[in-house]
Amino acid sequence: MDWGLEAERRLTEIAACSEPTEGVTRLPFTPDHAAANAVIGDWMDQAGLAVHLDAAGTLVGRKAGPAGTPSLLMGSHQDSVRNGGRYDGIMGVVLPCLALQKLAYEGVDLPYSVEVLAFADEEGVRFPTALVGSRALAGTVNPAVFDMTDRDGIRMGDALDAFGGDAAGVARIVRDPARILGFLETHIEQGPVLEREDLPVGIVTGICGIERNAVRFTGETGHAGTVPMQGRKDALVAAGRFISAIHDAAGQTAELRATVGSMALHPDAVNAIPDRVDLTLEIRAPEDAARAAFAARARAEGERIASDAGLGFAMDRTYEQDAVPCSPMLREALAEAARSHTGNALLLPSGATHDASALSDLCPVGMLFVRCRDGKSHSPAEFASAADMGVAIEVLADCLRGLVP
Amino acid sequence: MDWGLEAERRLTEIAACSEPTEGVTRLPFTPDHAAANAVIGDWMDQAGLAVHLDAAGTLVGRKAGPAGTPSLLMGSHQDSVRNGGRYDGIMGVVLPCLALQKLAYEGVDLPYSVEVLAFADEEGVRFPTALVGSRALAGTVNPAVFDMTDRDGIRMGDALDAFGGDAAGVARIVRDPARILGFLETHIEQGPVLEREDLPVGIVTGICGIERNAVRFTGETGHAGTVPMQGRKDALVAAGRFISAIHDAAGQTAELRATVGSMALHPDAVNAIPDRVDLTLEIRAPEDAARAAFAARARAEGERIASDAGLGFAMDRTYEQDAVPCSPMLREALAEAARSHTGNALLLPSGATHDASALSDLCPVGMLFVRCRDGKSHSPAEFASAADMGVAIEVLADCLRGLVP
Repeated sequence: MDWGLEAERRLTEIAACSEPTEGVTRLPFTPDHAAANAVIGDWMDQAGLAVHLDAAGTLVGRKAGPAGTPSLLMGSHQDSVRNGGRYDGIMGVVLPCLALQKLAYEGVDLPYSVEVLAFADEEGVRFPTALVGSRALAGTVNPAVFDMTDRDGIRMGDALDAFGGDAAGVARIVRDPARILGFLETHIEQGPVLEREDLPVGIVTGICGIERNAVRFTGETGHAGTVPMQGRKDALVAAGRFISAIHDAAGQTAELRATVGSMALHPDAVNAIPDRVDLTLEIRAPEDAARAAFAARARAEGERIASDAGLGFAMDRTYEQDAVPCSPMLREALAEAARSHTGNALLLPSGATHDASALSDLCPVGMLFVRCRDGKSHSPAEFASAADMGVAIEVLADCLRGLVP
Repeated sequence: MDWGLEAERRLTEIAACSEPTEGVTRLPFTPDHAAANAVIGDWMDQAGLAVHLDAAGTLVGRKAGPAGTPSLLMGSHQDSVRNGGRYDGIMGVVLPCLALQKLAYEGVDLPYSVEVLAFADEEGVRFPTALVGSRALAGTVNPAVFDMTDRDGIRMGDALDAFGGDAAGVARIVRDPARILGFLETHIEQGPVLEREDLPVGIVTGICGIERNAVRFTGETGHAGTVPMQGRKDALVAAGRFISAIHDAAGQTAELRATVGSMALHPDAVNAIPDRVDLTLEIRAPEDAARAAFAARARAEGERIASDAGLGFAMDRTYEQDAVPCSPMLREALAEAARSHTGNALLLPSGATHDASALSDLCPVGMLFVRCRDGKSHSPAEFASAADMGVAIEVLADCLRGLVP
């Protein structure tokens, strides 16, 4: 069997479990989700796994190892964003199923239990929360999320129960860390690094910590015709200097990303000097200390720019998520397998959050990235080749073979 | 009589002719406008002027000089923006009425005719056009404007006719340039220059030409976490560099103003690299050649910034209005009067458009600026002192006395 082509065939098959949109739109606890789970259940069955739906709506395929051995968890999420692609999330369910099926064909019995997990909701599109399946296993679900409603007013708890889950029982599926070997997630890179390096797969060193800041420059408005340039307190000019300075500084800091993605001007009129600019500054880094240092540098830079022009400056952190280092054991097992198949084991951070982020509260996590075309994700243009997925399946299978419980 | 205090009293009186808003809201062809015209008609009467409403809704007060002599036009607009102040426009009706009244008290007979004009609509708030009264005199009204409607669907032509004007007759009130000496407008500065120089009045050298440009930087979007800083094509970073470069360059060019006042990002999300930024660049200068040179410099700067980062750049002029130089004769007459009253005749450009802009198509124009607090206008905080208005009345009266037809 050409495992890569089989992965491609399966991703084409399950892409049909979607709202009738351009690209894939598969939201949790919907008929599309149910149809997808029927397909995934069949894949799990072919891989020799026993299938059940857990209380949080995660489809679980399990193959028991020798008595008393811990479980290696694998998998990712079944859901997509609206008008998403065929790979994000679901590829991380397909590939471990095929890796296990390949090992079974080869007669390999692993010295530990394995589970493949297809989480209901990682993207957080239908309900204003995310990662419910992975958090349920780690015991970090806030029960209040079940009262959140979708845009039709349906409670998440009701949708989950109607789907066959059990919102009230989610607290009972928390896993015992002592019985979990780790969680291994496979995902498209969603970035351009592997394509630039011409490599099919890469090993994730860790998932970047994230912080978001609300930044405000405050000056004075005035008529664009009557106020001379000298003495203007133009909040947008200060914001412009800040944005370019932050970009240049971030480029000097390895592995760090700083982005001003959203911005609002006041009064936002062609003939008025802006007196207030609000912008978002998101900083991501694999090391929390590097992120904190950069945030301090950004604050100092903003204060200097504002002070030079007699403006006000404020920077408030609105969100923070710590970095998650990947387990050295899983990193090394993946790297060794990658080296043997590609001659190279490129290490790179994950700039995006994944189910592995939530599962890091339960157990060691590891991630394998697969090259994707033009770094695109969350789009119908998302693409990973059959050949690259074939390599990923080989690497996963070899990694599983090499792991010692 | 303390003429400055009388001006203040009159401005307080007419401020009540307004929608019941914070600040003054007086729109054309409304009951507030009718109430204001009754008050203005009384002022004109006290100045010895014969009052009538012209076809375009302008209240005209006229005093004939010796037979065959041309007219000096004075005045400004009666209307305000929404939530505007007590001075913008209407002060330019009050002060020439008082200057004429003062000359009459002093028994001065001018050797030419005079008219004070209270234009219905300069601000363009009620209908999406402006300057209808001044354009009507110059013969530059496009008749299509009378079909424009306000937000209640009322045609401007119908509103004008119901007010006592005559939309169909506007073409018949075009003035003969040979019979007009000039137009002299008095206005608050709407800027900080006179306040900085500690002067009550200033003489306008000319009304700045204006151009507005739509500027677009086009790059590539991507996930703020997964795309490394190197190789990003961030349209906002380029826009930031452009905005600060334009500001700095404008500061090196005397009398020129360049403002980025409005801006839109795409996709405008906290975690996405902006791939498109649209912004407005307004340039104003008293010399059209200086404005054109600056626009070319801005274009070259934008192209350089975009090219350095591999982005697209476009800059399209969406609006242009040539500069209007003030008449040397009116400038000198105002300057001489100002010098004799204040010891100084500060010359400055007008960055804003005024009724004088439209009347420059008919006759020589001149403008006297009065200091306003904090440079504020179009706001309830708009303020000019009684003392400064008193000086302006003296300067106007002296200027009128000095003019030779």
